[in-house]
Amino acid sequence: MSGKLFVIGTGPGNPDQMTPEALAAVAQATDFYGYGPYLDRLTLNAGQRRHVSDNREELDRAGAALRSASDGANVCVVSGGDPGVFAMAAAVCEAIDNGPPEWRNVELIIIPGITAMLAVAARIGAPLGHDFCAISLSDNLKPWDVIENRLQMAAKAGFVIALYNPISKARPWQLGKAFELLRAVLPAETPVIFGRAAGRPDERIAVQRLEHADATVADMATCVIIGSAETRIIARDGQTDLVYTPRFISGGNR
Amino acid sequence: MSGKLFVIGTGPGNPDQMTPEALAAVAQATDFYGYGPYLDRLTLNAGQRRHVSDNREELDRAGAALRSASDGANVCVVSGGDPGVFAMAAAVCEAIDNGPPEWRNVELIIIPGITAMLAVAARIGAPLGHDFCAISLSDNLKPWDVIENRLQMAAKAGFVIALYNPISKARPWQLGKAFELLRAVLPAETPVIFGRAAGRPDERIAVQRLEHADATVADMATCVIIGSAETRIIARDGQTDLVYTPRFISGGNR
Repeated sequence: MSGKLFVIGTGPGNPDQMTPEALAAVAQATDFYGYGPYLDRLTLNAGQRRHVSDNREELDRAGAALRSASDGANVCVVSGGDPGVFAMAAAVCEAIDNGPPEWRNVELIIIPGITAMLAVAARIGAPLGHDFCAISLSDNLKPWDVIENRLQMAAKAGFVIALYNPISKARPWQLGKAFELLRAVLPAETPVIFGRAAGRPDERIAVQRLEHADATVADMATCVIIGSAETRIIARDGQTDLVYTPRFISGGNR
Repeated sequence: MSGKLFVIGTGPGNPDQMTPEALAAVAQATDFYGYGPYLDRLTLNAGQRRHVSDNREELDRAGAALRSASDGANVCVVSGGDPGVFAMAAAVCEAIDNGPPEWRNVELIIIPGITAMLAVAARIGAPLGHDFCAISLSDNLKPWDVIENRLQMAAKAGFVIALYNPISKARPWQLGKAFELLRAVLPAETPVIFGRAAGRPDERIAVQRLEHADATVADMATCVIIGSAETRIIARDGQTDLVYTPRFISGGNR
């Protein structure tokens, strides 16, 4: 008989942003699959086993977890943030879709979490207060020209844009190129938010104007949010400025 | 001296999807502002006061909460889902932006929550596993032609689309019109997910094909997710089918 396969998100890393539902899943599982730093966020007991894999081995990890659950174990696949946003839930579904028939019998329980853009937005105001999109800037999984097209169409349509995976050692130039493309569409003063490790002790939130936005501020732990033409900054004395996108548009077709 | 103004989200309504961080904010506040059904999700003590207002009075509610916090109370503004996604965080920022200077001195603490599209996605697989956007279908706050343009550009760019506020008594035809527009851009078999009250006892999740998608399935408590051309369905015997969007695209520019 198959075991259960939980897919959870830890949230961005602040333990108080992890839901009771996700913690209850952790309590039920014996075997944990994930990238080491995400597994490190969990408090496991002596009988619970960690199966650490590298950040880029999602499909192998999903297969290993499915095999174990199919053999009867209660298994937990651990993502940061929300498991459904550029994370393990899609990898597990891909593995089921292309795997042996018995993997379809595994009881799959996906548990939502706080994804990075929500945590970053909360720290700075309400930049996602109106229509928005989320784009992974990684061109490991899709051609760069698709990303360029999406950036341009999203900006032209008036979406606020949240960028996941903005930069890495192997992908050093893509974020700068994205800013360059967006400068051709959006006003120079459009706010750009660099939200690193939101809610964690090493949190760092910076706001720049698109005109001067500096891609080197971002690292792998950063979610970048680029405003729309409607996004505004509220200056405050003695407190961080707020960035928000109003809920309304008064004008006609953009 | 000003009090604190917390803006929290309860998540979609399952108490186990509300974070400890949000519960800690509730414990610190004396006055609670929100739509009645959202306030009903909180367990308040005898000294904590409820200030109920109608669902469409966001800006008045934000002003009342800011006045109270500015007068020294610790106040909590309560949204469903995540407060930063089509909810009260933007309304509070708008009120600060247009309000008296002392409102800028209020200590504003926004706390993220599980937004509806993440909860719905988790119940069905991983439809948001690739680039996606969130659009409020309400034309109370923006012209309908802006919405039409965004729907078309989002679908052409290959985004999965999550629709908030899909339908109401005052807005009966918009969702049907949205499906009609999208049928001209997306394949007939594109999966459409109707996710109502995800995680609550009255949850109802339905999947249809865009070709036959029936807007009357949605109500005010529904989040509708429309796949991209890449979104797939995995048939399973004896279990709900899974819907997911692969993390990768193999082709070239769409």
